[in-house]
Amino acid sequence: MRIKTPYLLFLGEGDQAKTSSGVAYWRPEICAGQLRLPGCSVDLGLADISIEEAASKGVKTLLIGVAPHGGKMPAHWVEVIRQALLAGLDIAAGLHTRIASIPEVRQLADSLGRQVFDVRHPDREFAVGTGELRSGKRLLTVGTDCEVGKMFTALALQREMRQRGMQADFRATGQTGIFIAGTGVSVDAVVSDFVSGAAEFLSPAATDEHWDLVEGQGCLLHPAYAAVTLGLVHGSQPQAMVLCHVAGRESLIGFPRYRIPSFTRCVALYEEAASLTSPGARCIGMSINTSRLDADAATRYLAEAEQETGLPCVDAVRTGVGRLVDILQ
Amino acid sequence: MRIKTPYLLFLGEGDQAKTSSGVAYWRPEICAGQLRLPGCSVDLGLADISIEEAASKGVKTLLIGVAPHGGKMPAHWVEVIRQALLAGLDIAAGLHTRIASIPEVRQLADSLGRQVFDVRHPDREFAVGTGELRSGKRLLTVGTDCEVGKMFTALALQREMRQRGMQADFRATGQTGIFIAGTGVSVDAVVSDFVSGAAEFLSPAATDEHWDLVEGQGCLLHPAYAAVTLGLVHGSQPQAMVLCHVAGRESLIGFPRYRIPSFTRCVALYEEAASLTSPGARCIGMSINTSRLDADAATRYLAEAEQETGLPCVDAVRTGVGRLVDILQ
Repeated sequence: MRIKTPYLLFLGEGDQAKTSSGVAYWRPEICAGQLRLPGCSVDLGLADISIEEAASKGVKTLLIGVAPHGGKMPAHWVEVIRQALLAGLDIAAGLHTRIASIPEVRQLADSLGRQVFDVRHPDREFAVGTGELRSGKRLLTVGTDCEVGKMFTALALQREMRQRGMQADFRATGQTGIFIAGTGVSVDAVVSDFVSGAAEFLSPAATDEHWDLVEGQGCLLHPAYAAVTLGLVHGSQPQAMVLCHVAGRESLIGFPRYRIPSFTRCVALYEEAASLTSPGARCIGMSINTSRLDADAATRYLAEAEQETGLPCVDAVRTGVGRLVDILQ
Repeated sequence: MRIKTPYLLFLGEGDQAKTSSGVAYWRPEICAGQLRLPGCSVDLGLADISIEEAASKGVKTLLIGVAPHGGKMPAHWVEVIRQALLAGLDIAAGLHTRIASIPEVRQLADSLGRQVFDVRHPDREFAVGTGELRSGKRLLTVGTDCEVGKMFTALALQREMRQRGMQADFRATGQTGIFIAGTGVSVDAVVSDFVSGAAEFLSPAATDEHWDLVEGQGCLLHPAYAAVTLGLVHGSQPQAMVLCHVAGRESLIGFPRYRIPSFTRCVALYEEAASLTSPGARCIGMSINTSRLDADAATRYLAEAEQETGLPCVDAVRTGVGRLVDILQ
């Protein structure tokens, strides 16, 4: 899978655009414009352009990061997709519904030679994990919960490391990350027998100086998603991990019975799990989203986390991730 | 899914019949006969009967538990399947290839109103796990590795518990277990996001006196399969676990770099993992296959395991599982 850029970001009638805004934030240079339908209440600050304008500007792919209301693909969205295909664009979608399974989309794309990427659905089969030690360095972002900045942190690390001249590649495991990287594996959609094998595929052997920065998923202490997380931890074979957290989060989103344990406990748990395939794997620090706190409270929060864990604790936005990269260097 | 019995066991040209022999061992009363093709070198000790004889004896399902050589379904196997469908039988297969995806099988089955079960492939979608505490009691067999008797132990427990008048249902998670129970979920074929949800579905809320005996899969310390295991541990929400092992096994089958740690360490690891969704979950004992040892060595091995773990350690064949059931009572 290699999604061609630049993108036209389709926002539909959406009132949120988490995926698309992530792409626009991290890769503004590949976002040529946005396409909004009547009723759309979000604005990514990009030029509003039509499919025809996009095609004339060299846009290669219509990116569908928003889900339709009610989940079902409305006919007028299918028409937008048809127009994009006719104008010469590929389609990349991050929906639970497979765009490529809509017969008229499939047929038109085939007849025109366009590609349709359903990034939530693996486009290949994977082998089972081998657990064999491989060369190269890997860092996996892990979390106290879902939605704690694991993708953001991995991308911030990539940016900082590349600025310092280090060899660093972000490895995407979720839909937004895949749009940003143009490739990747949606690991939570992989059959469970092959999750660690998919993670091995995603971060293959490399030179000793090279870092793969693997986007983590879920949480080892999550009653629904820990299986995904453990397979990703084992397959990624990380030498280094960064524990991500949102300041103030005390229980898992949507699972109020599940309290988040201490940072020290989380660090120990991830290090123990990772050590199976990567002996000596260490959490090298924390990345904490303190955006809900004022500057003073954020500083205190990070200091307390450092006190507790004995590790550098950064906010990827407020402080940057430089202190984490210092350790990797 | 509810596979109708009795079965005709199709052995093809096989030289092993692990799946079918498991079914014949645990459920001889539902195995009406075996169907062997020229070149077949196994014999389950059942009557060799033709499809027509099977149909006349009331057989409901042709069970295909052996894989063809080379993995590809040969034309003469398809012909056997066709004959079985025409004679009034359903088909149940445990192959990686989906029988139901063979067009002529699909069409004939549809036209005749027969069912085709591909038990390695889930026949429904699952929700994500909830982690909500549910009523009823559940025991999960867990392992130091794959192929250590997790299914055998769960079935032995069911037999012993039912003999004592306890309410106990075996819950199958692999192909052989599904053939034996007539239903179940092949959890390693479930998309990783839904593994714990599938395990919740498989062992639903029940009365306080009722035990589900859930067949475990894989091993938490397995570089390829731990994700499956963890999802099953979390979703099964077991109050009790039995750690299964094969005497003399020192490293994971096919993964010689991965040494099996001490029993005490395994017990602690499973108890910690299970406690997330089932606070207080305990390993109540071990089930050890000592078949490679002579009687004296087996007795010593079990005694040493008891010494190490402080738990009753049985061999489900040699000693029976009565001491484990004593604890559950």
